[in-house]
Amino acid sequence: MKRVLALLKNIPANEIPVGAIIVKDGEIIASAHNLKETLNDVTAHAEILAIREAERRLANWRLEGCELYVNLEPCPMCATAIINSRISAVYFGSYDTQFGALGSAMDMRKIYNSQLKVYGGIMENECDEILKRYFARMRGENA
Amino acid sequence: MKRVLALLKNIPANEIPVGAIIVKDGEIIASAHNLKETLNDVTAHAEILAIREAERRLANWRLEGCELYVNLEPCPMCATAIINSRISAVYFGSYDTQFGALGSAMDMRKIYNSQLKVYGGIMENECDEILKRYFARMRGENA
Repeated sequence: MKRVLALLKNIPANEIPVGAIIVKDGEIIASAHNLKETLNDVTAHAEILAIREAERRLANWRLEGCELYVNLEPCPMCATAIINSRISAVYFGSYDTQFGALGSAMDMRKIYNSQLKVYGGIMENECDEILKRYFARMRGENA
Repeated sequence: MKRVLALLKNIPANEIPVGAIIVKDGEIIASAHNLKETLNDVTAHAEILAIREAERRLANWRLEGCELYVNLEPCPMCATAIINSRISAVYFGSYDTQFGALGSAMDMRKIYNSQLKVYGGIMENECDEILKRYFARMRGENA
């Protein structure tokens, strides 16, 4: 998760600070941060970009045995992509009670009858703080 | 919807036959069919590819005033991307009781408190027939 947070140091100021890393056999095979505004692409969430990079690298859409680390609970779009890619485990930082689709707002695993393992709240305070600072800045408050 | 079905004439035989078209002011601004197997990209559903194409063309991730036509009810990944892109209406053909996320298996509009308009069952018989033939072929049956 420290590596995920390190990714966010270089994220453009107008992007919601979310980063994702995919690990296979102890090696990082893909990493990305949110680029929705920069790319004008509503699908360019960190998790989607990392999954596409890992699949390119392995020349396979099946990411069995891979683990994904992300600082915020995935939204329904990303949770579906994660499940369909057959990633084996997700480790996330902050819970998202509004849109989180791996247990908070809903649990996408139920729709897909998925065995995906999910571990939430990893370095939760640090992850919460980063998002809180971003949203305070967006509202024009002192962070 | 006839134009969507025409897209499927050229789809590779191993891809689930789903196509999508995005229309703005009466003009087709993007069209795509499923390319998951071809691209080795679990996110390469017809709707996602069409949304990304439309956003590139408009240089904007906001697709307000656009309508999306697709022969199968969108999955949760695609429904989320559609809602987040602010597309105004979706017209789909076949209902998907297993994974359809615009009313059948779930309704993603509830999570996002979305005003997206949804019209299902457009040319439903023709759309059902195309999917039925594909799955029969995949099972090795005569179609």
